[in-house]
Amino acid sequence: METSKQHIEPAAGRLGVLTVGLGAVASTVIAGVELIRRGLAEPVGSLTQMGTIRLGKRTEDRVPLIRDFVPLAGIDQLVFGAWDPIADTAYEAAVKCGVLDRFVHIEPIAAKLKEVEPMPAVFDQNYVRRLEGLNVKSKGGKRELAEALRQDIRDFKAAHSCDRMVVIWCASTEIFLEPGPAHQDLAAFEAAIDANDPSIPPSMLYAYAALKERVPFINGAPNLTADVPAMVELAHEAGVPIAGKDFKSGQTLMKTVLAPMLKARMLGLRGWYSTNILGNRDGEVLDDPDSFRTKEQTKLGVLDYILQPDLYPKLYSDVYHKVRINYYPPLGDSKEGWDNIDIFGWLGYPMQIKVDFLCRDSILAAPLALDLVLFTDLAQRAGLTGVQEWLSFYFKSPQHAPSVYPEHDLFIQQTKLKNTLRWLMGEEQITHLGIEYYQD
Amino acid sequence: METSKQHIEPAAGRLGVLTVGLGAVASTVIAGVELIRRGLAEPVGSLTQMGTIRLGKRTEDRVPLIRDFVPLAGIDQLVFGAWDPIADTAYEAAVKCGVLDRFVHIEPIAAKLKEVEPMPAVFDQNYVRRLEGLNVKSKGGKRELAEALRQDIRDFKAAHSCDRMVVIWCASTEIFLEPGPAHQDLAAFEAAIDANDPSIPPSMLYAYAALKERVPFINGAPNLTADVPAMVELAHEAGVPIAGKDFKSGQTLMKTVLAPMLKARMLGLRGWYSTNILGNRDGEVLDDPDSFRTKEQTKLGVLDYILQPDLYPKLYSDVYHKVRINYYPPLGDSKEGWDNIDIFGWLGYPMQIKVDFLCRDSILAAPLALDLVLFTDLAQRAGLTGVQEWLSFYFKSPQHAPSVYPEHDLFIQQTKLKNTLRWLMGEEQITHLGIEYYQD
Amino acid sequence: METSKQHIEPAAGRLGVLTVGLGAVASTVIAGVELIRRGLAEPVGSLTQMGTIRLGKRTEDRVPLIRDFVPLAGIDQLVFGAWDPIADTAYEAAVKCGVLDRFVHIEPIAAKLKEVEPMPAVFDQNYVRRLEGLNVKSKGGKRELAEALRQDIRDFKAAHSCDRMVVIWCASTEIFLEPGPAHQDLAAFEAAIDANDPSIPPSMLYAYAALKERVPFINGAPNLTADVPAMVELAHEAGVPIAGKDFKSGQTLMKTVLAPMLKARMLGLRGWYSTNILGNRDGEVLDDPDSFRTKEQTKLGVLDYILQPDLYPKLYSDVYHKVRINYYPPLGDSKEGWDNIDIFGWLGYPMQIKVDFLCRDSILAAPLALDLVLFTDLAQRAGLTGVQEWLSFYFKSPQHAPSVYPEHDLFIQQTKLKNTLRWLMGEEQITHLGIEYYQD
Amino acid sequence: METSKQHIEPAAGRLGVLTVGLGAVASTVIAGVELIRRGLAEPVGSLTQMGTIRLGKRTEDRVPLIRDFVPLAGIDQLVFGAWDPIADTAYEAAVKCGVLDRFVHIEPIAAKLKEVEPMPAVFDQNYVRRLEGLNVKSKGGKRELAEALRQDIRDFKAAHSCDRMVVIWCASTEIFLEPGPAHQDLAAFEAAIDANDPSIPPSMLYAYAALKERVPFINGAPNLTADVPAMVELAHEAGVPIAGKDFKSGQTLMKTVLAPMLKARMLGLRGWYSTNILGNRDGEVLDDPDSFRTKEQTKLGVLDYILQPDLYPKLYSDVYHKVRINYYPPLGDSKEGWDNIDIFGWLGYPMQIKVDFLCRDSILAAPLALDLVLFTDLAQRAGLTGVQEWLSFYFKSPQHAPSVYPEHDLFIQQTKLKNTLRWLMGEEQITHLGIEYYQD
Repeated sequence: METSKQHIEPAAGRLGVLTVGLGAVASTVIAGVELIRRGLAEPVGSLTQMGTIRLGKRTEDRVPLIRDFVPLAGIDQLVFGAWDPIADTAYEAAVKCGVLDRFVHIEPIAAKLKEVEPMPAVFDQNYVRRLEGLNVKSKGGKRELAEALRQDIRDFKAAHSCDRMVVIWCASTEIFLEPGPAHQDLAAFEAAIDANDPSIPPSMLYAYAALKERVPFINGAPNLTADVPAMVELAHEAGVPIAGKDFKSGQTLMKTVLAPMLKARMLGLRGWYSTNILGNRDGEVLDDPDSFRTKEQTKLGVLDYILQPDLYPKLYSDVYHKVRINYYPPLGDSKEGWDNIDIFGWLGYPMQIKVDFLCRDSILAAPLALDLVLFTDLAQRAGLTGVQEWLSFYFKSPQHAPSVYPEHDLFIQQTKLKNTLRWLMGEEQITHLGIEYYQD
Repeated sequence: METSKQHIEPAAGRLGVLTVGLGAVASTVIAGVELIRRGLAEPVGSLTQMGTIRLGKRTEDRVPLIRDFVPLAGIDQLVFGAWDPIADTAYEAAVKCGVLDRFVHIEPIAAKLKEVEPMPAVFDQNYVRRLEGLNVKSKGGKRELAEALRQDIRDFKAAHSCDRMVVIWCASTEIFLEPGPAHQDLAAFEAAIDANDPSIPPSMLYAYAALKERVPFINGAPNLTADVPAMVELAHEAGVPIAGKDFKSGQTLMKTVLAPMLKARMLGLRGWYSTNILGNRDGEVLDDPDSFRTKEQTKLGVLDYILQPDLYPKLYSDVYHKVRINYYPPLGDSKEGWDNIDIFGWLGYPMQIKVDFLCRDSILAAPLALDLVLFTDLAQRAGLTGVQEWLSFYFKSPQHAPSVYPEHDLFIQQTKLKNTLRWLMGEEQITHLGIEYYQD
Repeated sequence: METSKQHIEPAAGRLGVLTVGLGAVASTVIAGVELIRRGLAEPVGSLTQMGTIRLGKRTEDRVPLIRDFVPLAGIDQLVFGAWDPIADTAYEAAVKCGVLDRFVHIEPIAAKLKEVEPMPAVFDQNYVRRLEGLNVKSKGGKRELAEALRQDIRDFKAAHSCDRMVVIWCASTEIFLEPGPAHQDLAAFEAAIDANDPSIPPSMLYAYAALKERVPFINGAPNLTADVPAMVELAHEAGVPIAGKDFKSGQTLMKTVLAPMLKARMLGLRGWYSTNILGNRDGEVLDDPDSFRTKEQTKLGVLDYILQPDLYPKLYSDVYHKVRINYYPPLGDSKEGWDNIDIFGWLGYPMQIKVDFLCRDSILAAPLALDLVLFTDLAQRAGLTGVQEWLSFYFKSPQHAPSVYPEHDLFIQQTKLKNTLRWLMGEEQITHLGIEYYQD
Repeated sequence: METSKQHIEPAAGRLGVLTVGLGAVASTVIAGVELIRRGLAEPVGSLTQMGTIRLGKRTEDRVPLIRDFVPLAGIDQLVFGAWDPIADTAYEAAVKCGVLDRFVHIEPIAAKLKEVEPMPAVFDQNYVRRLEGLNVKSKGGKRELAEALRQDIRDFKAAHSCDRMVVIWCASTEIFLEPGPAHQDLAAFEAAIDANDPSIPPSMLYAYAALKERVPFINGAPNLTADVPAMVELAHEAGVPIAGKDFKSGQTLMKTVLAPMLKARMLGLRGWYSTNILGNRDGEVLDDPDSFRTKEQTKLGVLDYILQPDLYPKLYSDVYHKVRINYYPPLGDSKEGWDNIDIFGWLGYPMQIKVDFLCRDSILAAPLALDLVLFTDLAQRAGLTGVQEWLSFYFKSPQHAPSVYPEHDLFIQQTKLKNTLRWLMGEEQITHLGIEYYQD
């Protein structure tokens, strides 16, 4: 493997960030970035802001911050905008969703948050049944809607003097859609737009609009959206990166840590029962079985890929895996995931692991969104187009090349991400061999 | 890094395995190996027996079993012996400790288990206060005891026509000892033996005897034992590997998986409260505060090394870490570890993870003991002497070179182990970069 | 309240017990009674066998065993029979359901268990969809089936020289049925039988047959069955007691203990999320949404009655209560109930209780079945007919007089049961006032 | 039992409440009462404020509020004062202990809270080692200190025009003291005060001073204090009630609910492991083994009394009960109790219950303190002197007459309390017999 540095354009000027959805996640990102800028809070959870990277050998003691190592946009360079079917500003959204402490983290930056007013959204209740909103684009055909979104992107860029843009989906989960003929190549996709084909949900119009404007697109929800051949084709054609899908924030994060442990230790698995209770808008949307089905797909696949039952039939070929999500309003934006894991060890003896994760949805998701914005922008400046597999670290259902299986193991994902940064900057890959410390 | 294969002697003939202690762990290993030989049970939990290793690129699909890839001794080649201060055979030990189902897993191999009778032990209640036994070597000085152990090893090897031997400590935890002057070099150590110095506990006599007989020594408990300069010096001089210390089997295994997750995601940590309840002989011994202190050291260090508070002061410099072990007879050989983990995320918001691990001590430890025996024997045949850092994967407190810090992260340990096997066999290191799938 | 003793017929002769269903619960009862008779096990969980009752004042120290206080049939007097659509004997049922240790608790009494062969059942898959069986009565109309059951009861009584009989439902949950016109009085009910009305499920035919034969009927499942006016009318007419419904064995038992604690302490409740995983035949049947609906009714009602939101609107009028049951085969007959309870205290501050109950379905249910058989037989001999509210202690959804609300609080139920026994025997009621110890 | 009403003096005028200790509990009570007065919060958790009592038969539907049924002082009549070795006002204490939301529940009543300034305390670090304070009475002998406390009570009563007073211990746990000769009668006790005997800790001086002033004394901590014959003698002589000891607020509350369930159902118990983590001043004090020992006594006794191993040797004579408390600062005033309960059922089969109680120490204790103040004042007006067993409901280690055992079962305690109120007011005792609904 050559270790020469790749060419990367500098991160000069302003980076416009448009969030699709201005709810709990987006308002938590926007408020957080402002608080961090002012030194009122720390960007905990963000690899780009707090993470380091080890370079060279353990004894060299070279461990810079990632943001000092690769040329990322600084958080001072970010400018936020949004679309949402509900007309609340970022201030109103933050107050209503109840994630942040009002007195400590909202009121001090109220003026700034009130500036972020959502543009009218492309929204269709056929795809997200439990929501409704009035701040929507007056109905035209899908082509008109896509063009309107492209115009929004251009207008925002001009109005805020941005040098570059990123679009990120932070909205609710759409109903389950199978990839169909309209998604197989760009020509079919364009035709389907023109025909108002129902296989083109709003999320695809956002992704299409972004890519056509040569703007990277990130998908934080489990919708198909950009995870179809037509979109990958467009991304390569336009020379922009895409990243997705579904932020890996709570129970699945835990799962992609514990399943690798079982496999590392060759401990067998008989069953894994996961139940979630959550009380926010996301929970309400997922109470619709069709939206849940979309989510269930990304949640269930994880174990199969990590555990490789084909390689280990005696350990993993008969796993009973069940995932439940329940809307439970008393929790608000808090989210609780309870897992019961039935494992077996030496000679087949059964044991159990039970995990209760009392987490906060938007607090876990916000730093992922920030990192993805900054890394995707880096990818574009480094000329990396199409699917960014090295960002699998952030996703429940990482997009990947058709020739390979996805990597779900959090630690392989982390190694992949960091070795990609090393490769970009011409540093040696880390293998953890370290035999040299024990040989003459 | 060159990728030429290392020279490794073939694994011909019989491999004698002497366990120090013939209690729950040792009898579970011995019974298990016999059951597996006869096809009556599976070696679940054993990387050497069930694990695979990926070679080359993801698309090559080369994933052999580890035991087909590196030349390990087969389980048919193993012959077991033991020392124990209690005269029970492996059969009686297995029945009493209650780990295995008597009808399914003990009676069918009773004759074989009865053959394993423990040799009289070197035992001193000053170092393990809650135990007593009559099957002990008649008191002489420490030098005489060491020589008697050497003679046991030679006798066993001859009596069972073994080609090679391994000694593994599967006994109770000794009281806490600080490394002292007698441990700093081999000459001082030898002098201390001759002087019956109290800084030389029984476990060091076992390790010394093994190494002097050019037999690898493995330490499954947290005692100092071979983790002192004098022993490393002797290991190099004698050309044998040593591996230790303290099997990483339950709560610490979990900790070295969850802490890396927190660090990977830059989630902060305020406190980690771990409590254990266990009801076997190990629990009884650890109820002695001096034995517990030894254990506490190996259990507490883990977080500091993984979390690197110097690199991440805002996330990990103020962690309140508490570990408790309680003897609780109702559990028998079962062991339950309950962890409450107080973390914080974006802008400092608190969250909690609670883990309840209902495990079985000996069931988790047995495959580790088997793997360590086979890998240590491999190391010796490959000419790797002294500390085997690549076996850190198996230990709570891995021995390491003085020039580097220990690796506690289970996934770094796994990468290190597998890349060491690749290096031994002349295969390429795996880096998970995989950028080639996304470039033209 | 007068304290004169009630007249009770002696418990002479043999008591025949017919279980509807010969699965996990019934076989565990039958095996257990035999083991206890032989001194091979203890009747843990049975109030009639192990319970005591305090009489008079605390200082009198009169605390006899309940079975020495009231004239119950002894377990030596019991003779078991059963109906089941599957032809397995009690021996085969016990082996298959995996509740009891085969070597310790099944094989020693195998001959006895094999004697219990199920009579052909009245079974209809329209009412229990996930089961099927061949050991069923050849189809006739509902009247013929009812008559066949009556004949079975008479035949069994004669064949085994029984003096008295009891019929107890230990079978699967039928689909949800609303009480309808056919259930309102006995005449309508008889007409519906003759008309093969679908509102008469098999369980009602069993109850009808028992009552017509002047045999008490107990319902361990949540089916409507005897909980309709027509059946209560028949019970009074025939002079027999009825008791039901749905054994209170696991999560609901816990709920009827914790909810009274909240109310006793005036702690508020915002939400209660209960999830169950279980892997036996019961779990499989409840995976059918229509059977689950029947169960859900008995599980949900509990909180409302205990917490009295009308009396305490500020504490309990806005409770989000959700109950989930999931079929999860890895658990077998074990059953795990996880509850998350969101409470609030002083000034409204939130707190949480989480309970994980790792229980065994049939082990919990078996002693309830035994107690109910013996107490119902006692009731009949004491001339108590119709609904036995004092047995509410045993049920998730206790039948009760139309004029009063049901009591769900376990401790009120226990007081009611014990004070009823005191009343039957002419002893004073216990009030726990005890002011006399503190006054001159 | 006669049902004539007892004579009770009216609750006219102001009731002075002096808390010993002005920390988390006391400041939470004082702030709460003020907020409730102003309609800014609800007295959740308080039986006197929110509880009802059922009178007569179920069908009568007579269920008044307790405060409408018995003549209690109203919260508008309360005036608070305190002693504390730290000079913080109730405002400063509330801010520092972090129990209440500052903006919602502290600032709006800041002026009122600042009025409560602690009087100098009688404090001696020999009895509470982990605390220190400067706001203490200048050292005199124990007699002088007791007289100073009496003077404080008289002064406060006069200064605030109180008609009646109550003193309640809300301070830290003193070290463990065995009852000795000095505690056996009042004469010996008086002599020990005069002799500065070390068997008289500060808490006894407070109790002594209160009783001498004919003021009821309540003990919220596990110290011996008023739980000795000398104090009971004094209480009777002075004609005042005493109530104690140790608020039953968290894990023990749960234990006195779950253990009665086990006994009600005749489920056996093998072991109960309780661990607590808490981060407030109380946790810090209990980190001293001598203070913990005092607490441990009140926590351990509970099971024995409830389970009656003498009556049920097969179920409860071999219980392994362990209680651990760990100071764990990340929790602050939150307190988490984790219980693992090993039970066994039918034929001896093992099952487990695990409970995790995420509670808040002062939020649970505050309403108990309020209720005890009001009920103790009622007791005095009703002429009930000495130990108030009917208030056992509130205590971990309820004081009781020497002739009887204490009642720990929460539901017996509740019945006792409510039947005592009924007896006071001349209403019939409730027995839950209810046989009348089922007889003609």
